[in-house]
Amino acid sequence: MGLLETIEDPRDLRDLDDEQLTSLAAEIRERIIASVAVNGGHLGPNLGVVELTIAIHRIFRSPSDRVVFDTGHQAYVHKMLTGRADQFDRLRKEGGLSGYPCQDESDHDIVENSHASTSLSYADGLAKANSLAGRDDHVVAVIGDGALTGGMAWEALNNIAADNDRRLVVVVNDNGRSYMPTVGGLANHLASLRTNPKYEPALEAIRDRIKGTKVVGPKAYDTLHAIKKGLKDAIAPQGMFEDLGLKYLGPIDGHDQEAVENALTLAKRYGGPVLVHVLTTKGKGYDIAVANEVDQMHQAPSGGFDPETGDATTASPASWTSVFRDEIVRLADHDPRIVAITAAMLYPVGLDAFAEKFPDRVFDVGIAEQHAVTSAAGLAIGGMHPVVALYSTFLNRGFDQLLLDVALHRCGVTFVLDRSGVTGDDGPSHNGMWDMSLLQIVPTLRLAAPRDGARVRELLGEAVAVSDAPTVVRYPKGGVCADVEAIERIGEADIMLREGAEDVLLIGVGSMVGMALDVARGLAADGVGATVVDPRWVKPIGPEIVDLAQRHRLVVTIEDNGRSGGVGAMVRQAVADADVRTPVRVHGVPQEFPDHAKREVILERVGLTPEAILDDTRARLG
Amino acid sequence: MGLLETIEDPRDLRDLDDEQLTSLAAEIRERIIASVAVNGGHLGPNLGVVELTIAIHRIFRSPSDRVVFDTGHQAYVHKMLTGRADQFDRLRKEGGLSGYPCQDESDHDIVENSHASTSLSYADGLAKANSLAGRDDHVVAVIGDGALTGGMAWEALNNIAADNDRRLVVVVNDNGRSYMPTVGGLANHLASLRTNPKYEPALEAIRDRIKGTKVVGPKAYDTLHAIKKGLKDAIAPQGMFEDLGLKYLGPIDGHDQEAVENALTLAKRYGGPVLVHVLTTKGKGYDIAVANEVDQMHQAPSGGFDPETGDATTASPASWTSVFRDEIVRLADHDPRIVAITAAMLYPVGLDAFAEKFPDRVFDVGIAEQHAVTSAAGLAIGGMHPVVALYSTFLNRGFDQLLLDVALHRCGVTFVLDRSGVTGDDGPSHNGMWDMSLLQIVPTLRLAAPRDGARVRELLGEAVAVSDAPTVVRYPKGGVCADVEAIERIGEADIMLREGAEDVLLIGVGSMVGMALDVARGLAADGVGATVVDPRWVKPIGPEIVDLAQRHRLVVTIEDNGRSGGVGAMVRQAVADADVRTPVRVHGVPQEFPDHAKREVILERVGLTPEAILDDTRARLG
Repeated sequence: MGLLETIEDPRDLRDLDDEQLTSLAAEIRERIIASVAVNGGHLGPNLGVVELTIAIHRIFRSPSDRVVFDTGHQAYVHKMLTGRADQFDRLRKEGGLSGYPCQDESDHDIVENSHASTSLSYADGLAKANSLAGRDDHVVAVIGDGALTGGMAWEALNNIAADNDRRLVVVVNDNGRSYMPTVGGLANHLASLRTNPKYEPALEAIRDRIKGTKVVGPKAYDTLHAIKKGLKDAIAPQGMFEDLGLKYLGPIDGHDQEAVENALTLAKRYGGPVLVHVLTTKGKGYDIAVANEVDQMHQAPSGGFDPETGDATTASPASWTSVFRDEIVRLADHDPRIVAITAAMLYPVGLDAFAEKFPDRVFDVGIAEQHAVTSAAGLAIGGMHPVVALYSTFLNRGFDQLLLDVALHRCGVTFVLDRSGVTGDDGPSHNGMWDMSLLQIVPTLRLAAPRDGARVRELLGEAVAVSDAPTVVRYPKGGVCADVEAIERIGEADIMLREGAEDVLLIGVGSMVGMALDVARGLAADGVGATVVDPRWVKPIGPEIVDLAQRHRLVVTIEDNGRSGGVGAMVRQAVADADVRTPVRVHGVPQEFPDHAKREVILERVGLTPEAILDDTRARLG
Repeated sequence: MGLLETIEDPRDLRDLDDEQLTSLAAEIRERIIASVAVNGGHLGPNLGVVELTIAIHRIFRSPSDRVVFDTGHQAYVHKMLTGRADQFDRLRKEGGLSGYPCQDESDHDIVENSHASTSLSYADGLAKANSLAGRDDHVVAVIGDGALTGGMAWEALNNIAADNDRRLVVVVNDNGRSYMPTVGGLANHLASLRTNPKYEPALEAIRDRIKGTKVVGPKAYDTLHAIKKGLKDAIAPQGMFEDLGLKYLGPIDGHDQEAVENALTLAKRYGGPVLVHVLTTKGKGYDIAVANEVDQMHQAPSGGFDPETGDATTASPASWTSVFRDEIVRLADHDPRIVAITAAMLYPVGLDAFAEKFPDRVFDVGIAEQHAVTSAAGLAIGGMHPVVALYSTFLNRGFDQLLLDVALHRCGVTFVLDRSGVTGDDGPSHNGMWDMSLLQIVPTLRLAAPRDGARVRELLGEAVAVSDAPTVVRYPKGGVCADVEAIERIGEADIMLREGAEDVLLIGVGSMVGMALDVARGLAADGVGATVVDPRWVKPIGPEIVDLAQRHRLVVTIEDNGRSGGVGAMVRQAVADADVRTPVRVHGVPQEFPDHAKREVILERVGLTPEAILDDTRARLG
């Protein structure tokens, strides 16, 4: 039995000596690599926070002290140290541990969502609540330098800095990266703090001097802090965090267990908001990850990988992303107006080939979706055609900007939403099941849902040709559907199948067209005539769809989007507005947060299978 | 004829001498006061930017140089200087000048929306487009210190600072306020720069020395800048903007025409991104505004005011806001868990009485809706019940946070949305016609639309009693509807009227219940029996609504929200899901951006009148 098995609660960490702590760190890294190699998940970020997480749990008292992890995929070590090490072989599996913190798993898990830059706002709220309730517990927020580029982190810092008596420790886990190297003025500023050669030894000297002395409370801290600040001013530019009014401690070597613990002890004693700047190495302890220049194996292949080589166990099938990756380069070759924007995810959204070929025409704005959207509006007003490539779930961050800055201003901006619909493994916050409802309410916007790779190419081409309104092309995660050609085009819509009488009109949205065809074949076996249509553009709903609806006895819509306000709902509205009485049956995801599981499992659970839809349709036909 | 009439184009400003410029500024202020006294509109902000706007238009070459105003309500002077002075008597009237920049009015107007903190992102995009197209035009963004507290301004600064060769001038119009005094660490930092007594004269001295010399390009600028910076370091803490890598010029007295022009000239010559920090006084030149301690007459009463006294011309009727203002204090008196959050709008949303009574339980987070929402989640996890009071349109900024940080985490947070539905005068970006569609897709959330003041009180009480899900109470702008009591309650719904046979079920949402009653009376005159129901809670749609629908021949829903995905659409979905075949006719705002006009005018234009709905209903029955 290893040391890890003896840690049932963070309290058990306090008795370990230096040697044991070193062994524990090594054990944790082995366990992470072994588990992620089989189950997939986040590798680089977790290997980087081993010593930091141990230190936090030795210095603070979770769960009465609250530890909030920004982008929860860096919380594996935290999970192991809070009684869940033995469940790591079931990480990210249905019924197993979530890949993010999870309130239902443990009292030590505060927030489970994984959108970046939220931790400081949570922490501010938690600290305010402590203060109002007269509790002197601490709140610790762990945020990466990448997440600090997100606007809401700034909003929170601005609030935290203004308040001097709340017990809040902001740990900046600075590895110089999100997926990609962190961009912008902040990154340059952190680098200037980080690369200072003289500061760390100077801090060591002060620490040595004060070791063992009782220093408690703001006043004692201020004395210490003044010494440190004096030194720091002499050797480094004064930092922007202090300009904001936030006490700053650092930089600290995040893999030096003692150094991190000393810094956290100082921060804890202060009793007001303090920022501790910790330098870590993404992938630390696993050379193959550290050597990976793209992203230090930020997220391992979902099919697992060989720990000896770092290579994926199974070859990835051609993906929706890869079709976009090639096509955007081809389009940009012919159209110099096309520029591309990514929010810190150049590779995951498939803009790497574009960046290589057109380095001046691609902009990585950091984890900053709001800026991604509105700077795109500016580019469009300036005569360009921006293509903003995002994961669907992250568009929610820029909804207001899409509505007012892009659509109200009639800007020709194309949004390409990857990981739309049900994504599964990454848990509730990563599902892209909201986009088609949100987008339906944006005036002038046109929304396309390609059913296969050929349609990604076709619809992307049509989208970038629109210059006076926003356009969106959305597709799911994973392997792209095999191309299926239409038998006829009516208006904007592709007729995929006409079989027998015009009994049932099946409307398949994007990747669900295949399911619509399966249902149609099932109906044919019953002697029921079905038409299958792919509207291609699912906003606006074209008159051809209403015409088709009128000629059938029943309309059945299938989408991997929330049922409320999605494509089915809009078909129903278009049909009703035209006084067509054909009933419309809407199949989609119930308006709930799905637990983490494989996409197929979730689809089955919510009734999005050909069998379930066939049964339901038969029941309607009575 | 005054000087103002001679300014048909910004070019005409260049020939004016100092004396003429002083006269012009006075004339502009008179004109603004006279116009806003009659038409309503934004007063304080515009009086503060007279010299600054003149300077911008003398130094830069609009429209080839692009001038972007953050929160466009500070653009009145800009409008006057770009050929629209003669139309100021029709400001904010239907068919007259918009209260915000407007692309259709002038080539000099770039962006017309009015949500704060967007200008830097637009400017970044415009500057990138200039750079890609090889144009050496400048982009000027004018942003208030209040708007800098918004996260997207930070995202933009982070991007702008990283790029050294774009011609972008950020003018920070620092009056220490948004509506309210600007909050947080940034405000403290700006104050430390602002109150520096020695810096301004030192800068003057340098300027005097360089006056008349030809200084062009980054190198010359750097020399000057180094001198300035040296001085500055000696007398003030180095600023966070320079830490980010952004050149900083200031602070400049924003009412000293020559000083502002000198600073802008320096900034223009530099050729890369520069931040010019200009100090202005909100309400400058109108003592009554300056002396107004709440908001320096930020926005004048919509019915106009007496310029001699500053008093509103017509007394405001009791408003939805004032009902909330009283009730939240009453509730908080009995429930110590209740805390309140505002995003820089304490008075407009009606939290001032709360703040006076419970100063420790109210948090003004700045123009920072994302942080408002997620810090509320933190407060809820910490045991409080936060009430977040926002204008409906600004909730769009926090949609992702509401969905994932609040709803996914089952936090009991109550959102009170003022200015919901059609607001009118303030133009397309201020209409709150999106909320009921957005909110319908958020799992677990409960949404209430009170029909009158009594229901605001009742539903707010029910909302703050929910501790495991977000709740929303939304109501429109203006005078509150007179209380109308129900004849019966079924489930959550109030039956307002039952007359004759069960022919038509009229579902009135919130303030539209009165219109539903009017329609019912019209139907009664035809001998058609109507039932009028107020669901009170419009999400979820209760089973009682479906039961009622089943018993009638036609369902008619009325809401002042977008038709797509709103309450009517959800009623239709609930009815269809229950296999009830009663047709549902949905009346709401078409999914378009309404032009500015009075609320009643817009409602009539989109068919939201008793007469239009009665006609439509008769046609359905016919």
